[in-house]
Amino acid sequence: MTQFPKRIALLGSTGSIGQQTLDVVRCFPEHFRIVALAARSNVALLAQQVQEFHPSLVACFADTPMVEEAARVAFPHVVLGEQGLMDAATHPDADIVVAATSGLMGLAPTLAAIDAGKTIALANKETLVMAGHLVMQAAQRAGVSILPVDSEHSAIWQSLRGERAEDVRRLLLTASGGPFRRTTLEHIRTVTVEQALAHPTWHMGPKITIDSATLMNKGLEVLEAHWLFAVPYEQIDVVVHPESIIHSMVEFVDGSFKLQAGLPSMHLPILDALSYPGRLNTAQSGLVRELRWPEVARLNFEELDVVRFPCFRLALAAAKSGGTYPSVLVGADEEAVALFLSGKIGLPRIAELIEDVLTRHQSVAQPDVTTIMGASDWARRTMRELYEQHIAF
Amino acid sequence: MTQFPKRIALLGSTGSIGQQTLDVVRCFPEHFRIVALAARSNVALLAQQVQEFHPSLVACFADTPMVEEAARVAFPHVVLGEQGLMDAATHPDADIVVAATSGLMGLAPTLAAIDAGKTIALANKETLVMAGHLVMQAAQRAGVSILPVDSEHSAIWQSLRGERAEDVRRLLLTASGGPFRRTTLEHIRTVTVEQALAHPTWHMGPKITIDSATLMNKGLEVLEAHWLFAVPYEQIDVVVHPESIIHSMVEFVDGSFKLQAGLPSMHLPILDALSYPGRLNTAQSGLVRELRWPEVARLNFEELDVVRFPCFRLALAAAKSGGTYPSVLVGADEEAVALFLSGKIGLPRIAELIEDVLTRHQSVAQPDVTTIMGASDWARRTMRELYEQHIAF
Repeated sequence: MTQFPKRIALLGSTGSIGQQTLDVVRCFPEHFRIVALAARSNVALLAQQVQEFHPSLVACFADTPMVEEAARVAFPHVVLGEQGLMDAATHPDADIVVAATSGLMGLAPTLAAIDAGKTIALANKETLVMAGHLVMQAAQRAGVSILPVDSEHSAIWQSLRGERAEDVRRLLLTASGGPFRRTTLEHIRTVTVEQALAHPTWHMGPKITIDSATLMNKGLEVLEAHWLFAVPYEQIDVVVHPESIIHSMVEFVDGSFKLQAGLPSMHLPILDALSYPGRLNTAQSGLVRELRWPEVARLNFEELDVVRFPCFRLALAAAKSGGTYPSVLVGADEEAVALFLSGKIGLPRIAELIEDVLTRHQSVAQPDVTTIMGASDWARRTMRELYEQHIAF
Repeated sequence: MTQFPKRIALLGSTGSIGQQTLDVVRCFPEHFRIVALAARSNVALLAQQVQEFHPSLVACFADTPMVEEAARVAFPHVVLGEQGLMDAATHPDADIVVAATSGLMGLAPTLAAIDAGKTIALANKETLVMAGHLVMQAAQRAGVSILPVDSEHSAIWQSLRGERAEDVRRLLLTASGGPFRRTTLEHIRTVTVEQALAHPTWHMGPKITIDSATLMNKGLEVLEAHWLFAVPYEQIDVVVHPESIIHSMVEFVDGSFKLQAGLPSMHLPILDALSYPGRLNTAQSGLVRELRWPEVARLNFEELDVVRFPCFRLALAAAKSGGTYPSVLVGADEEAVALFLSGKIGLPRIAELIEDVLTRHQSVAQPDVTTIMGASDWARRTMRELYEQHIAF
């Protein structure tokens, strides 16, 4: 039986997933307790969260001296820098670590949490994309579960329950198709940052919203699914489903499909990871809106057009090549999306520049954490250099 | 681990489900073996089946002396009448009994098979509708599983795997809506037998096709689901889904839905029951057509309009009243559908006559088999009498 309250260390508490995790905890005070909160730089919000949830440990990465100073003032016992994340991830009172930091930052703390025997609720994409081999090996060694906090992977995870691994024929990730699902290649060249940030079904941070517009995000999800469920890339497909009601599916060897569905919301996959192996009743919580099928009325499914979404193709190529290619993909993409968001390049340039960086890379097989970080840093530098050359000519 | 080959006793081998069960067995000769075949009156088809599958026992109910004579000539060791069904249901070599006889006939043999410790693959609707309390009690006592052979119940059964019973909020049966989904009440009055037999997505026998046109079939499925999954009627709903791709769904307490899908075919739920707890690969079998989502393209969902489908309402009322009401419903419906199929009454008259019969009934609580059969016989007689009165005036 599950022991309640489950004690949670939350890494990335002021981000979108972090805040929504706290929404879930707020709804079920008898079931969940926050023992550690770690944030990067939003000291004001972190202070509110600390006041509400009374964690034993407060950590602030504090990437500037100003933030560091503010954090020291707000939290007398704050643990700063990398050490804060590590202390939160391995907090002796924590049963489960919600890894919701963005980018590369989550990797080392997640590995430390695994080694400390914590269940991991994993919301950080990059961790599995770059270091899936290390994370899953460590989890197997430590006997801990990596639970997905992502609507697509949560859907697959739920659909696989009670089924045998050898009965899986294929994982089928659904993709909304983003704001440019029906936009021609020609028009994609001219889209603005505002248009790219207007996602039709999901409200997320800017980086992941752009990754959704280019379908890089769906490519990264294929890599995640590969590692989470130990399924070869040849058995993972994507189907476009603009309503985002069916969150993903599993096809079994007999031809039967299982699907998981709900209205688009991150609260549900977060709750499912936290409450596993049980489920908690949200009827009175206001947390999850009821899905009424006659109101949904119609679900559409379309082939994914990889020609218009080269980022998806690049992610798959990096995945299949393996080694440090996925780390380069992630580093190059972060830098390229930043260039797009600051108005310096157009949307199609993201894929072109990433492809350039990938082409220049010399991959290292079975990379360790240092090599992964090095490859990603190299990709960022190379991306910036390519951009400088690009504007120079 | 599952032992193969599984040894199967098939009751109702010449009917639609019986023949499709043999299609499945034919595809997986290393996994399934037929040890007993029982049919009602189609001696010619039964003879072909015996020649192909070499059962140890051949049973023929033989409701007329002519059929009896033909069966004796065709199968020197044939067991005739009720005894044949009972011998097949309790055959010492059988691991699993596929109960695919139609109507009332399946009840006693199914109970006997349960008492003999056989796993039951249940395709006969009436058994659970009329005697769900007896069947599920017997199954619990004997420690045997009742596996559904019906696309809707198989879908729910698959969606429930790996989940806890207390986490279920609602079962949601999908209904194609039948040929008169969009037909107005006024036009339903004038439909012909041919129009009622033209089901848009499923090809089945005439009785169940008419039950699908009136949605009586969906009502009976609600009763079946109630007994199979021990879920109260208040937690079982129906949603119209004309494409019959989503075969049914489960809503969990957290608001998450799980759905099972496939192209409309009875081969898949039959295979799933026979291969449980595993699944068998149909890729090379030609048995199950591949579901391609972009080809399906669009799924629709609508509210069920109970006003235009009074049979559905009557089934629910009989279900909630319990006792012998469901047996009366089944008996009255069989007789009313026969009257419709022979052109003697119009489609709306089916519900009117059934309601008349139900109104006249004095229900008995917790009925035993004899009482159930008696109530159903009474309903048939009363239905015929009401029809005679109806044409007399």
